[in-house]
Amino acid sequence: MCDTAGQVIRCRAAVAWEAGKPLVVEEVEVAPPQANEVRLKILFTSLCHTDVYFWEAKGQNPLFPRIYGHEAGGVVESVGEGVTDLKAGDHVLPVFMGECKDCAHCKSEESNMCDLLRINTDRGVMLGDGKSRFSIKGKPIYHFVGTSTFSEYTVVHVGCVAKINPSAPLDKVCLLSCGISTGLGATLNVAKPKRGSTVAVFGLGAVGLAAAEGARLSGASRIIGVDLNSSKFEEAKKFGVTEFVNPKEHKKPVQEVIAELTNGGVDRSIECTGSVEAMISAFECVHDGWGVAVLVGVPHKEAVFKTHPVNFLTERTLKGTFYGNYKPRTDIPSVVEKYMNKELELEKFITHEVPFSEINKAFEYMLKGEGLRCLIHMEE
Amino acid sequence: MCDTAGQVIRCRAAVAWEAGKPLVVEEVEVAPPQANEVRLKILFTSLCHTDVYFWEAKGQNPLFPRIYGHEAGGVVESVGEGVTDLKAGDHVLPVFMGECKDCAHCKSEESNMCDLLRINTDRGVMLGDGKSRFSIKGKPIYHFVGTSTFSEYTVVHVGCVAKINPSAPLDKVCLLSCGISTGLGATLNVAKPKRGSTVAVFGLGAVGLAAAEGARLSGASRIIGVDLNSSKFEEAKKFGVTEFVNPKEHKKPVQEVIAELTNGGVDRSIECTGSVEAMISAFECVHDGWGVAVLVGVPHKEAVFKTHPVNFLTERTLKGTFYGNYKPRTDIPSVVEKYMNKELELEKFITHEVPFSEINKAFEYMLKGEGLRCLIHMEE
Ligand SMILES: NC(=O)c1ccc[n+]([C@@H]2O[C@H](COP(=O)([O-])OP(=O)(O)OC[C@H]3O[C@@H](n4cnc5c(N)ncnc54)[C@H](O)[C@@H]3O)[C@@H](O)[C@H]2O)c1
Ligand SMILES: NC(=O)c1ccc[n+]([C@@H]2O[C@H](COP(=O)([O-])OP(=O)(O)OC[C@H]3O[C@@H](n4cnc5c(N)ncnc54)[C@H](O)[C@@H]3O)[C@@H](O)[C@H]2O)c1
Ligand SMILES: [Zn+2]
Ligand SMILES: [Zn+2]
Ligand SMILES: [Zn+2]
Ligand SMILES: [Zn+2]
Repeated sequence: MCDTAGQVIRCRAAVAWEAGKPLVVEEVEVAPPQANEVRLKILFTSLCHTDVYFWEAKGQNPLFPRIYGHEAGGVVESVGEGVTDLKAGDHVLPVFMGECKDCAHCKSEESNMCDLLRINTDRGVMLGDGKSRFSIKGKPIYHFVGTSTFSEYTVVHVGCVAKINPSAPLDKVCLLSCGISTGLGATLNVAKPKRGSTVAVFGLGAVGLAAAEGARLSGASRIIGVDLNSSKFEEAKKFGVTEFVNPKEHKKPVQEVIAELTNGGVDRSIECTGSVEAMISAFECVHDGWGVAVLVGVPHKEAVFKTHPVNFLTERTLKGTFYGNYKPRTDIPSVVEKYMNKELELEKFITHEVPFSEINKAFEYMLKGEGLRCLIHMEE
Repeated sequence: MCDTAGQVIRCRAAVAWEAGKPLVVEEVEVAPPQANEVRLKILFTSLCHTDVYFWEAKGQNPLFPRIYGHEAGGVVESVGEGVTDLKAGDHVLPVFMGECKDCAHCKSEESNMCDLLRINTDRGVMLGDGKSRFSIKGKPIYHFVGTSTFSEYTVVHVGCVAKINPSAPLDKVCLLSCGISTGLGATLNVAKPKRGSTVAVFGLGAVGLAAAEGARLSGASRIIGVDLNSSKFEEAKKFGVTEFVNPKEHKKPVQEVIAELTNGGVDRSIECTGSVEAMISAFECVHDGWGVAVLVGVPHKEAVFKTHPVNFLTERTLKGTFYGNYKPRTDIPSVVEKYMNKELELEKFITHEVPFSEINKAFEYMLKGEGLRCLIHMEE
């Protein structure tokens, strides 16, 4: 592959020119990686709701033209100056939150919110020089969360790249680059249900079902799925969801419905919707005394979380997490191993597959609430 | 003492006839304890802000005439049917939250919110028969949080009584009956700062200073006291508070002031004010990634806790606690031992002492924000 190192690569990328308008697959120029950067050849990518939010740009800052995409798997094409951890040919997952290994967060056992490389949805350029590596006829195109995987080649900070087992199939483990690790980690690393617990999961998209999978692996006795779309329940049964509540089918607030179903509330709840109403319900539906609720969904910019403070005083806990509290470089290789050991199933999350040229179909499936993950094959 | 067992006792109690009006010390009748109840002779009691809130009845349900008081020490006078754990003469602390030892909460390691005997500020009667044990010329007077210690004798559910070391001086350890255990436990059992942590304490009353004491015992490197009353700082230094911030002296929100002082936020914060603004600031001033905030103050009925959900997503934790998560019967005897071993100092919390006949002075001190605890001697 080294023939392209140091050169501008011309390749196909799906460019979002305007909020909410279909992406256009066109030829872009991808500059070589600078210091502490690597250029990746993306082989598989998939669509996560976070892409859709920022592409819709409702209640989020619009930044266009932009190349979205952050859930992907690929191979290192070339590395920039100072990169010693990675070399051309390594199998990797790019991750929207990096790990510099040097800041207080990277050194803390509790946090994965790297000071340098934490998620930043407003920045559309590389950290090093404040410039984009993508252009079309010299006109820069913005990056998204440091990954921009809807491109055959992309440039990523070395801290945002998890090097994984080269025998792991990239068309499966690419899902661990965002959604599945996020949901799984939210349960295993943050909510930490005990064996026999009752768990509620709000939002039965891929993230929520990965959270349910985490609950199943933890030995939860009941997993209550909550979604506004009742068609999600059938699929959800495969992920250990044992009961289903659609808030639209009840006159009472869903937190009250769940409290009645569970003799006062669930032991743990995980919110994977992005809706602030669901966040409030997810918090208020946990049992007093010991209940823990975890927020995962990305809220609108103006959203306000509101509750009576007595709901905290009665010994409920509320936390939030990015990427399931996994540190991408340190922890993700072992999550890949969980798949390799057959502890974790990834196939069931892939409900659609499309060639790159049909990437807009993935958006349509998600907007219609159809299926979980649509795998996008970069090579057709 | 057994000559009074089974009889109505006539004694002095401080009766609140109306919201916010001085208490009137008068003769009341105290009925004998019924099944699972004990009658206590109160020797020392002190005033906690929670009494003041419900006596002022601003934003709380008014219930009058009532006998307040819940921080106290005394001796068992007689026991009702079925009581086997306690006998006349035992030294005890009555506690506003009980422990039935039988419900899911009592059996859980994490909770002290006993289903049967949790704090209930709206109930003014005994659980067993829904009646009051206090009367004046036959007219019932309401109880307060199951303790009503502003009376020479009171009747309490057996689950709300911690039996303690009889050699512990009741005029000191009575403080462990509420405020000091609450603040200490909020830090030691809930916030759990690591050695070297930075800790913010909102509200430098007795509860807040006990929280600071907990931070000092945990080896905190910096303890930042926050209070609207700057005169609190001098006293607070005795409790390990190293820095002081008065929100009124800054144009910026106090959470921003604290973030600047601490390079992004404190590791732990404990709110001991009851003000919802302080609760929001206490939450928002903890460091992202690992910060934990604990709510202790009793909020107004209509208070709403509001924050942007991204403050959770960036890996902050918010919890609340009653009574510092101590289980009264199981845990409080060992907190008394902490005092006996000189690990814990209680003397410095007692800034005023009055005879029972002057109980209204204790209210005046607290309303003026003067001092910490006013010890009320029942025997003059
Ligand atoms: N914190 C993180 O690190 C992180 C990482 C990835 C994704 N996310 C966020 O997680 C969320 C889920 O992502 P996804 O890809 O699974 O999305 P998705 O669209 O596939 O699934 C979301 C589900 O939530 C349901 N829903 C929406 N509002 C609801 C409500 N009020 N009550 C109940 N259900 C409701 C929808 O019907 C849908 O089934 C999104 O907000 C996404 O932005 C966060
Ligand atoms: N959760 C529990 O189990 C429990 C138990 C006991 C007391 N409490 C509550 O704890 C709180 C403290 O009790 P206390 O007896 O120490 O009261 P206190 O009145 O002695 O102290 C409260 C302090 O908070 C300060 N304050 C008020 N508003 C503030 C604000 N917005 N910002 C900063 N400081 C502010 C006051 O100036 C005062 O110094 C009260 O709300 C009380 O009801 C709760
Ligand atoms: Zn994602
Ligand atoms: Zn870092
Ligand atoms: Zn109190
Ligand atoms: Zn109980």
